[in-house]
Amino acid sequence: MAFEVHIIGSGSALPAKGRHHSAQLLKINQSHYLVDCGEGTQFRLVTLGHSLLKITAIFISHLHGDHILGLFGLVSSMDMMGRKKPLFIFSPPGVAELLVSYFRVTNTVLGYELTVKEMDVSEKRLVYEDANVNVFAFPLKHGVSTQGYLFQEKATPRNLIKAKLPPDIKIQEIVKLKAGENVLDENGKIKYSVEDLTHLPPAGKSYAYCSDTEYFENVVAHVQHVDLLFHETTYLEMHKEKAIKNNHSTAKEAAMIARMAHVQKLAIGHLSSRYADFDAHLEEAQKEFANTEAATEGKVFIL
Amino acid sequence: MAFEVHIIGSGSALPAKGRHHSAQLLKINQSHYLVDCGEGTQFRLVTLGHSLLKITAIFISHLHGDHILGLFGLVSSMDMMGRKKPLFIFSPPGVAELLVSYFRVTNTVLGYELTVKEMDVSEKRLVYEDANVNVFAFPLKHGVSTQGYLFQEKATPRNLIKAKLPPDIKIQEIVKLKAGENVLDENGKIKYSVEDLTHLPPAGKSYAYCSDTEYFENVVAHVQHVDLLFHETTYLEMHKEKAIKNNHSTAKEAAMIARMAHVQKLAIGHLSSRYADFDAHLEEAQKEFANTEAATEGKVFIL
Repeated sequence: MAFEVHIIGSGSALPAKGRHHSAQLLKINQSHYLVDCGEGTQFRLVTLGHSLLKITAIFISHLHGDHILGLFGLVSSMDMMGRKKPLFIFSPPGVAELLVSYFRVTNTVLGYELTVKEMDVSEKRLVYEDANVNVFAFPLKHGVSTQGYLFQEKATPRNLIKAKLPPDIKIQEIVKLKAGENVLDENGKIKYSVEDLTHLPPAGKSYAYCSDTEYFENVVAHVQHVDLLFHETTYLEMHKEKAIKNNHSTAKEAAMIARMAHVQKLAIGHLSSRYADFDAHLEEAQKEFANTEAATEGKVFIL
Repeated sequence: MAFEVHIIGSGSALPAKGRHHSAQLLKINQSHYLVDCGEGTQFRLVTLGHSLLKITAIFISHLHGDHILGLFGLVSSMDMMGRKKPLFIFSPPGVAELLVSYFRVTNTVLGYELTVKEMDVSEKRLVYEDANVNVFAFPLKHGVSTQGYLFQEKATPRNLIKAKLPPDIKIQEIVKLKAGENVLDENGKIKYSVEDLTHLPPAGKSYAYCSDTEYFENVVAHVQHVDLLFHETTYLEMHKEKAIKNNHSTAKEAAMIARMAHVQKLAIGHLSSRYADFDAHLEEAQKEFANTEAATEGKVFIL
């Protein structure tokens, strides 16, 4: 059981010293997922010691350059490295057209299967599922079609208390116990009690990603009680007119969403290049929601 | 009079720790020119303290991702930074189609004039000229349409020896002297001698860029006597079969070109990610051509 959120790029649209364009790598029980893929993501992944080939799926929030321009190089490098396993990209509409245009002009033919699933979500819905995780997309508000993502780790089976297991217990009986059912005898009485012979496993962890968006209270319902919420804080309240103009949020607004959604922890990032560091953003956010941390480059949140 | 070649990215196709994709910034007498624009170029420029807005023209060698994928983000950032002056891009065919597709899908409308001049050169020809420099493109050999570039600083007028100028010399006479002509009197005799009253200015410097290419002797004629030749050295002789397969050069081959062209200095780069450093490449090249240096990231060659 592991659920890690690695901050690969923490900057916003304009390049800033030390802050690259948006990208996060999620490692959930040996499986790797990428969230957004700004220019330079492949270098940042290699520099931080991650494998490009382990990534199973890429989730794109919206089609602004600072969230997608690393895709072309990343999917090409995966091919040059000999990737054979399929790759999935989930995105608002447009990514497939860009990739097809790039592949055609540069005569690129991938040696693996790339599936792009485009969608324009108007309400929260399941977009991806595998053995580890359910991923939901939900709408954000950013001028163009933009979606946040909720990653919910799947509940694992109950853990057997091995010392208490009778030596003659059958495989089918163990399967029942792990699924949370009592094992009954031929008379319908409890033969083996699930309460006695198993522990409840730890609850599946959950992570929500909200970048980019203006202050949008609809988000609150979608990210209730998550273990970690990433919410963009491009601006401070003192530059609120820019936040409104550019469809972004302030640190205070992100923290209000976190408070209303009762999340465990808030991570903030996507700072405008006008800010040299996170200090003022943290101060502003923590007044509304104390458990706020900066999503600085290279930082790992372990859920 | 200044002619500087700044190495912005020195790597090849696959991302390698500490080596970014191809890009070089030329600063010639206050004017800035970019040669190739791999992914991450805008970050590298900002990190190395260069201005994005001062760049007048971008010269692309060929349409492989590691030489062009920084273009989308760079031209967009220039716009967000308020660029108004025109920008020129010179390239083999395809870049305009990629940019148009990107602008359309992302609803980008630039606030400055971007001119893309596409060409497929079969012989050396002048492609750009301004007050500082003549830029020639010439064919390389790399499987796809690829061109090298020769930057020739323009010769400046002769320098007057002010202490020797007669006090009654006329403006038109000075113009003649600076252009290298003697001033004659009404009888056709030398009134003011250009040899006596002027110094020859320093010769214009020249720089040639050859990336990517297999060993291609036609290049020798185009880069004769340049002050600096950059030539790719993706491989070592011990991996020559890979160089041949992938249309790249070895360190020895680059040095042979430099020797035959009688260049002043050779800079090598575009190393495969399989090599950790430049040591073996330098050793191999210097056996053929002693004045060889590594084009490491951040290095500045002052001509």
